[in-house]
Amino acid sequence: MQSSLQLTESGRLKHFLTISGLSKALLTEILDTADSLIEVGERQIKKVPLLRGKTVVNLFFEASTRTRSTFELAAKRLSADVLNININTSATSKGESLSDMLRNLEAMASDMFVVRHAQSGAAHFIAESVTPGVAIVNAGDGWHAHPTQAMLDMLTIRQNKGQFEGLKVAIIGDILHSRVARSQIRALNTLEVDEVRVIAPNTLLPTQVESLGVTVFNDLEQGLNDIDVIIMLRLQKERMHGALLPSEQEYFQLYGLTQEKLKCAKPDAIVMHPGPINRGVEIESEVADGPQSVILDQVTNGIAIRMAVMSMAMSGQTETKNLLAESAS
Amino acid sequence: MQSSLQLTESGRLKHFLTISGLSKALLTEILDTADSLIEVGERQIKKVPLLRGKTVVNLFFEASTRTRSTFELAAKRLSADVLNININTSATSKGESLSDMLRNLEAMASDMFVVRHAQSGAAHFIAESVTPGVAIVNAGDGWHAHPTQAMLDMLTIRQNKGQFEGLKVAIIGDILHSRVARSQIRALNTLEVDEVRVIAPNTLLPTQVESLGVTVFNDLEQGLNDIDVIIMLRLQKERMHGALLPSEQEYFQLYGLTQEKLKCAKPDAIVMHPGPINRGVEIESEVADGPQSVILDQVTNGIAIRMAVMSMAMSGQTETKNLLAESAS
Amino acid sequence: MQSSLQLTESGRLKHFLTISGLSKALLTEILDTADSLIEVGERQIKKVPLLRGKTVVNLFFEASTRTRSTFELAAKRLSADVLNININTSATSKGESLSDMLRNLEAMASDMFVVRHAQSGAAHFIAESVTPGVAIVNAGDGWHAHPTQAMLDMLTIRQNKGQFEGLKVAIIGDILHSRVARSQIRALNTLEVDEVRVIAPNTLLPTQVESLGVTVFNDLEQGLNDIDVIIMLRLQKERMHGALLPSEQEYFQLYGLTQEKLKCAKPDAIVMHPGPINRGVEIESEVADGPQSVILDQVTNGIAIRMAVMSMAMSGQTETKNLLAESAS
Repeated sequence: MQSSLQLTESGRLKHFLTISGLSKALLTEILDTADSLIEVGERQIKKVPLLRGKTVVNLFFEASTRTRSTFELAAKRLSADVLNININTSATSKGESLSDMLRNLEAMASDMFVVRHAQSGAAHFIAESVTPGVAIVNAGDGWHAHPTQAMLDMLTIRQNKGQFEGLKVAIIGDILHSRVARSQIRALNTLEVDEVRVIAPNTLLPTQVESLGVTVFNDLEQGLNDIDVIIMLRLQKERMHGALLPSEQEYFQLYGLTQEKLKCAKPDAIVMHPGPINRGVEIESEVADGPQSVILDQVTNGIAIRMAVMSMAMSGQTETKNLLAESAS
Repeated sequence: MQSSLQLTESGRLKHFLTISGLSKALLTEILDTADSLIEVGERQIKKVPLLRGKTVVNLFFEASTRTRSTFELAAKRLSADVLNININTSATSKGESLSDMLRNLEAMASDMFVVRHAQSGAAHFIAESVTPGVAIVNAGDGWHAHPTQAMLDMLTIRQNKGQFEGLKVAIIGDILHSRVARSQIRALNTLEVDEVRVIAPNTLLPTQVESLGVTVFNDLEQGLNDIDVIIMLRLQKERMHGALLPSEQEYFQLYGLTQEKLKCAKPDAIVMHPGPINRGVEIESEVADGPQSVILDQVTNGIAIRMAVMSMAMSGQTETKNLLAESAS
Repeated sequence: MQSSLQLTESGRLKHFLTISGLSKALLTEILDTADSLIEVGERQIKKVPLLRGKTVVNLFFEASTRTRSTFELAAKRLSADVLNININTSATSKGESLSDMLRNLEAMASDMFVVRHAQSGAAHFIAESVTPGVAIVNAGDGWHAHPTQAMLDMLTIRQNKGQFEGLKVAIIGDILHSRVARSQIRALNTLEVDEVRVIAPNTLLPTQVESLGVTVFNDLEQGLNDIDVIIMLRLQKERMHGALLPSEQEYFQLYGLTQEKLKCAKPDAIVMHPGPINRGVEIESEVADGPQSVILDQVTNGIAIRMAVMSMAMSGQTETKNLLAESAS
């Protein structure tokens, strides 16, 4: 997938599809923008006019109240008009093709599609065909990417650790089925942390996972040694096909993060989880609710990151559109 | 349930969970505030900025388009951003606990949860655990309370009768299964009407109903004698378990409000019903649509009452938050 | 159905139910208003305050994400507050009558109902009983009318052809089950095009279709001869009862619009379709996406037309209400 798809000619963001191909400078710009927008959520009046009069369409081909809510809130705080379209109940049941539906939504002068889809590459596919001026934001596509989730994690790490240099980060759990993990690994490597480790049984690791730039551990305690940042993954039970997993109890015993196991990491290590948590499966409640957990900060940062990429992509599209208009005249 | 849960230290409203524990002065303040907001619904531009930039989450664990619509309209006329979450279709299906969901919504900087739940006490439970600054408004919980419905009834009574002193009020129908009736009885007694009567067969009365401060009548005509205000309840067919009721026809013959029976009350008695009406079951169409009916006024007043409690609770939360911030600094 | 139902005493629009009974001058006013609103969709900030502080209720008794979306967007760009009510999931399941539901929504100070219903005449029925001040906009009722669709088609024709005089227009397909076709035929005749043709097998034509002011062709190539505007209809498979149709393949061979067949029309003929398209059934992709197709312009115009009739009807209602208030005082 071409990285240039999501960038303007001058290198600014115009879609937000994947971490892959984005520079350290651009990821840092997203984090800086989000940092400045966190303050909006703390105001008495949580509104900025960055997307005022813009139409944001939440195009969810896969139900996710949670993710939809964060994008809807982010868009509303940017003063956009929001249209929620749940595709299961829409015109595709009348046999309309995806492409025809997109052309129609464009013709209604939509400015942005926030796309959630069960198939990998769906957001790219849409971005490739969309009319200039319309921004695509990937809200999760299949096993491929969930880049706003990865960026909110990066923001949370930077808030707590100040910088990425020198950090050792462990990602624990079902790497194989996790779109979040793929995006996280790319972001962490681009931001030049010292080391990214994945900790999982071999059955939950993609083949040749090392090529992503990670070191592999099958043992939780060994993997946690000297770690600054622990990223737990959600056990995607609904994604499992076949018997890749032992029982939940066995999984918890081997890979569940307990207070005891947490001691293997650095004393000031932070614990992250994308939610929703399976308490007692991936993580013990004492850890999830404990002093090292930054799980709720991740949620707060999620709104700020979404506001940041939405406003940056919209601004990139406006630049592109203006250039096109100039060259046409 | 502690009454102090819904009040600030200075005695102002910060949640609106139940009528129980609220003073006559506070109920009167709600009515006065609603009175001043009724005018908003009559303007060309039905908007006031009282909740501008606030995020109101309609958290409906039990479907009710009707109640959800009134809260959504009230919030929008207060200029809030509204997020509708229907829990049947949300992340709880991914096994997220209620508590985790609430912490997440708080972390998104939500300002208010309007809660509808099939279980009694749900709104209290949520208010007990919610972070300071977030207001809870009870939109109906199990058999327990439906306090905005009760307050819109009080507003309708005051509009028509001028005061509560000296009034005789009859509540007719399925008291046993009615969250509305419990809230109404408390409000009427707090506002010091002369007498509250309940008129129902014994099978539809809670045990020891007299302890709520009501007189009991099994006979409709006797009970209506000398009455100023008639409050019909909806027959909650969907709430019935077992054979508490005779047939609908028999019920109508005994407890249905007809023009004939209405004559037993004072000539200027008003007739109220929370809707939706079962015409010909609880009430005859001639009465529902007749000159003594104030049923549609109740609906109009419902928007004003919801605007009033939402803005008062939000303002109470802001007071609390500012106090906390001061004491922290 | 009386045409006066949708007009004020001074002849301005106050509901928008059907093309029938509207004058050429009024249709032209709608087109002119829409023309001036198209520009809003091209602005950086797509907002005008024409319905600011008004409550628009999308009352959909028949699911249609597509139509609902266009009305929702139109209302939001006019700055209205929008409430979506899907009747399948609402209080009618509690046995509330349609009439009671409407009285309730009126009592909430709703200003406009956008009504979609599977039964012919539903929008009229509602307009007849609605309280003064509330505007009804028909978003499609049964086989009867879909007047905003017809008007967006007229706008598209005028944009491309400059005027209606002298035009020959062909409507092709399932006239029998099409609410769109009925509205189109009326609008085209009122706007005084030269000729309206319907092209279909007899099984898909209403009896006495000529009385609507059309000439009938069973043969596509003959019917297209000398045509300026081609309006394809969607094959309403879901509306078919019984074997009115040959197979889809046979239909395409006889009535499907191909590049070859398109040559029978004038060289500058435009091709229209209300969407969603059944590619390869009514129309060949090469035609749908070709240079003569104005299908996506129709979608863009749909927003402008809906904005136009919503703001005109609201303004007519305000006039009526003010007159009533004056005569009452």
